[in-house]
Amino acid sequence: MKISEIGGEFALIRRLMSKGESDPAIIKGVGDDCAVLEYTADRYLVVTTDMMVENSHFAAQWFTPFQVGKKLMEVNVSDVVAMGGVPRFAFISIALTRDTEVEYLDELYRGIYASGEKHGVHLIGGDTTHGNEIVLNLALIGEVEKGLLCLRSDARIGDLICVTGTLGGNQAGLELLLAGRSGHTIEFLEPRCRSASEGSVIARHANAMIDVSDGLGSEVRHICEESGVGARIDCEKIPLSPEVIAAALALGKDPYDFALYGGEDFELVFTVPPAKLAGLKEEFSDFSVVGSVVPKEEGMYLIKNNASIDIGRGYDHFTE
Amino acid sequence: MKISEIGGEFALIRRLMSKGESDPAIIKGVGDDCAVLEYTADRYLVVTTDMMVENSHFAAQWFTPFQVGKKLMEVNVSDVVAMGGVPRFAFISIALTRDTEVEYLDELYRGIYASGEKHGVHLIGGDTTHGNEIVLNLALIGEVEKGLLCLRSDARIGDLICVTGTLGGNQAGLELLLAGRSGHTIEFLEPRCRSASEGSVIARHANAMIDVSDGLGSEVRHICEESGVGARIDCEKIPLSPEVIAAALALGKDPYDFALYGGEDFELVFTVPPAKLAGLKEEFSDFSVVGSVVPKEEGMYLIKNNASIDIGRGYDHFTE
Repeated sequence: MKISEIGGEFALIRRLMSKGESDPAIIKGVGDDCAVLEYTADRYLVVTTDMMVENSHFAAQWFTPFQVGKKLMEVNVSDVVAMGGVPRFAFISIALTRDTEVEYLDELYRGIYASGEKHGVHLIGGDTTHGNEIVLNLALIGEVEKGLLCLRSDARIGDLICVTGTLGGNQAGLELLLAGRSGHTIEFLEPRCRSASEGSVIARHANAMIDVSDGLGSEVRHICEESGVGARIDCEKIPLSPEVIAAALALGKDPYDFALYGGEDFELVFTVPPAKLAGLKEEFSDFSVVGSVVPKEEGMYLIKNNASIDIGRGYDHFTE
Repeated sequence: MKISEIGGEFALIRRLMSKGESDPAIIKGVGDDCAVLEYTADRYLVVTTDMMVENSHFAAQWFTPFQVGKKLMEVNVSDVVAMGGVPRFAFISIALTRDTEVEYLDELYRGIYASGEKHGVHLIGGDTTHGNEIVLNLALIGEVEKGLLCLRSDARIGDLICVTGTLGGNQAGLELLLAGRSGHTIEFLEPRCRSASEGSVIARHANAMIDVSDGLGSEVRHICEESGVGARIDCEKIPLSPEVIAAALALGKDPYDFALYGGEDFELVFTVPPAKLAGLKEEFSDFSVVGSVVPKEEGMYLIKNNASIDIGRGYDHFTE
C-alpha cells in the first residue's frame, strides 16, 4: 500500500505514532513543533529533530555546503522558538558518500556553527556514517519557562491570527531557481528563523504558536486541528515583501500561493487575544494580523477576492 | 581531500567537533557513548543519536523491517546503558523512498516499539521525509544517577578489563551471510543490547564503561585514549560462544578476529578495580575478565600465542 493511499505524510505519522505514550514526564509528545518534557521546577525541556536529504532538501547545484549547514540549524531552532523556548544543545548525524571531501564538511560545519553560535546552541554529539547520498539529521534540545510554553493546541475562539515578517520568500526563491531565473533567492538558500528572544516575547502574549515550515495554510490547519477550532484568513492581509511580489510577477504566479502553500519561511504564526495585541506591539511589532480564530463548525477558510475558499494542506512529502 | 587522508572517521569527528563547547550544563560533550548534561540534583541527562542507512547498515535481502526497527532501538539503548543510565525518550527521523510501502513501515515501527517497550523507552517525536534510500536516525534521551555515571575516561591503572556475555556473534553472522552460508546469523540480524538494570549494577562497581559497537579492540582503544592509560588483553580470555567458534571454523576465519575487529555486539566493556570484582560478581556474573589496565607507556597490546601484538582500531566507516 502506498503512503499516498492512507492520506500522506501527516496520516502516516498518526498511524505510526499512534501508541499512546503515557508517562508523567511527557507534557506533550507527537503533534507539536517539539516534544515537551518535565525538567526543573520552573522549566520544561523541549526536543525536536529534523532530517535533510541531498537533492530533496538541498540541491548541490544551488546550495553551498555552508548554506546547507546553516539551514540545518535554522530549521531546528525554529521549532524550539515556536514553543517559546531557548535552544541549547545539538546532536548531528550525517551520512556521507564515499567521495565526500573534507573541504565540503569543513564548510558544512562552518555553517552549522555560524547559525548555532547566533542562537546560543552548543554542538555536543552526533554520529557519522556513509550512504549513497548525503543525509543530515539534527536533534535539538532546548528549554522553556513553564509559563511561556506555547502549544499549537491552545488557540481560542476570538483570537487574532498573526504572522511575523513576510511570507513566500522561500518558495519564490525555489521557483526562480527552478525556472533558471535570477532574482531574490536568498530566502530559499539561507532561510533564517526567528530568535528565541522574539519567540519568548510573543509567547508572553500569545495562546498558540507554530513556525512556518510548510506554508501558512498548513500551519493554520495544524493549529485548528490541535485546538479544535476553525480559522478565517484574509488573503490580502498576508504580508508579502516587494521581492516576493516581483518574483511572482516575473514567474506569472500568485505570490499569495507562495505564502499559503510554499515552504520553509520559518516565520512564526501565533494566535493572540485581541486584548493583548497592544501589549505585544509595545514589545515586538514585526508581525501582521491575518485573520481570526472561529468556531470549528465554520471551518478553515480564506477570504480572497470576496470569495471564501478552503485552506489547503501545504506541502506534503508523500502526496505531491 | 579524502576523509581517509586525514585519518578516517574518528579523526574526522575530532576535526569537525573541535570547537570547545563550554557551558556549565555540559558535563561531557563529544567523546563518549552519550553526551551528559546537568538535570536534577541527583541525576544527569544522557543523550545519544545513531543513524542507519539501508545497504550500509541493513541489507534489505537479509533484514526484515521488524529487525531493522529493533536494531535501531538497541543500538541507541546500548549507548545509554553503557553510561550506567536508563533510556527514556526516543525521537525517530526517517527518510523513505518514493516506493516505500506502508506495510514496510508498520513492521519497522513494530520492531522499534518491541525493543522500546522492553527497555522502557517512549517514542515521542520525529521527522518523516524522503530520499533515494531509506535512512533512519534515532535520538535517545536517558538519565543516570550522578553516582553511577560511567565514562570512558575513568579507567585506572590496575583495573581489570571485563566484557559481558560473548563477542564476535555479530561479525560471524555477517560473514556467514556474505558467504551465502547458513548458521548462527541471529546475532547479526537481531543484536540485543544489555539492559539498564545490568548496566547500572556494573556501574556501581566499575570505573570506566563503553559498549561494543566496533569490536573489542576499538572499544579498549577508546577507553585507553580517553583515560590516558594502556591496556593488556589476553586473547584466549576473550569470551566466544560455541556458535561463533563453529562459524569461524566453517569460514576458515579466526573467531578472535570477529571479537576484536568485528561489529556491533552491544556487549559492555568495563574496567573494575580488583577489590570490587567479588562484590560485582555477587550481583552480576555474566562477564569475563579479559585483561588489565596498564600505564600508558606500555601501550595497548594483545597477548596471543605468547606474542604481544598491537590492538587494532576496529571498524572505521571511512578507511575500509
